[in-house]
Amino acid sequence: MSDQPKAPVTPVPAHEPPYYAAVFTTVRTQEQDGYRETNARMEELVKDIPGYLGMDHAQTPGGLGITVGYFRDADALAEWRSHTEHRMAQRRGRDEWYRNYTLHVAKVERSHTFVRPPEN
Amino acid sequence: MSDQPKAPVTPVPAHEPPYYAAVFTTVRTQEQDGYRETNARMEELVKDIPGYLGMDHAQTPGGLGITVGYFRDADALAEWRSHTEHRMAQRRGRDEWYRNYTLHVAKVERSHTFVRPPEN
Repeated sequence: MSDQPKAPVTPVPAHEPPYYAAVFTTVRTQEQDGYRETNARMEELVKDIPGYLGMDHAQTPGGLGITVGYFRDADALAEWRSHTEHRMAQRRGRDEWYRNYTLHVAKVERSHTFVRPPEN
Repeated sequence: MSDQPKAPVTPVPAHEPPYYAAVFTTVRTQEQDGYRETNARMEELVKDIPGYLGMDHAQTPGGLGITVGYFRDADALAEWRSHTEHRMAQRRGRDEWYRNYTLHVAKVERSHTFVRPPEN
C-alpha cells in the first residue's frame, strides 16, 4: 500500500490569475479502510466540475499530507464543495480517516512556473 | 537522508482571514548538494519575518514536494521574498536543485481546522 504517484510527476502549472486554490493539509489516523478507493473516486469526480484546473498532492510517509486543488473561480470550487458524493467522503474523513485537517481557501493573485532547461 | 519530519506532525491551523499563502510545488533534480542545509537555514530565517504565520511541508519520496508558507499580509510575504539570503537560495534552487517548480501566491478568504475528538 503506497501513496506514491508514478514518476515523472507533473505539477499543476501556473494559470492566468485570478483563480482559486484550496489547500488541504491532513494528518491521518490508523483507520484507513476505504481511503484509497474513495480518494481515487474523488480524483475522477472532480474532473467533471466545470472550471476545475488540476490538483497537486504530496504525502510525507507517516507525516503530513498536502492536497491543493485549483479552480477557475469561486463558483467552481463551491460546486465541488457541495457535490453529494464529495460531501459523503468529507463526512467519512472526519469520522474515520483524519486525525486533523485544515482547509485554506485562497484566491491566487500571481503565479509562475520554472522549468529547468534540458542538460546538454 | 530523509525529508521526513518527526511525528507528531502539527500542521499550521486556520488563522483569521485574510492572510496570504504561498504554495510552492517542486520536483527535484538528482543534484541535492547543500539542499538540506539551505532548507534548514531558510526555515530558521523566515521565523524572523514580522507577520510570518507558519509553514507546512509534505514530500512524496521520489515525487512531488509541496511547501506552503503562511503570512499575515502581502508586505510580510514581500519581505521574505526579497530577503537577501533567501534570494541566493532561490537562485541556487533554479541552478541546481529543482527540475521544475510552480509558485502560487494567494490571499486566503476562509479557512477552518478540524481536530478529531479524543477516543474513549
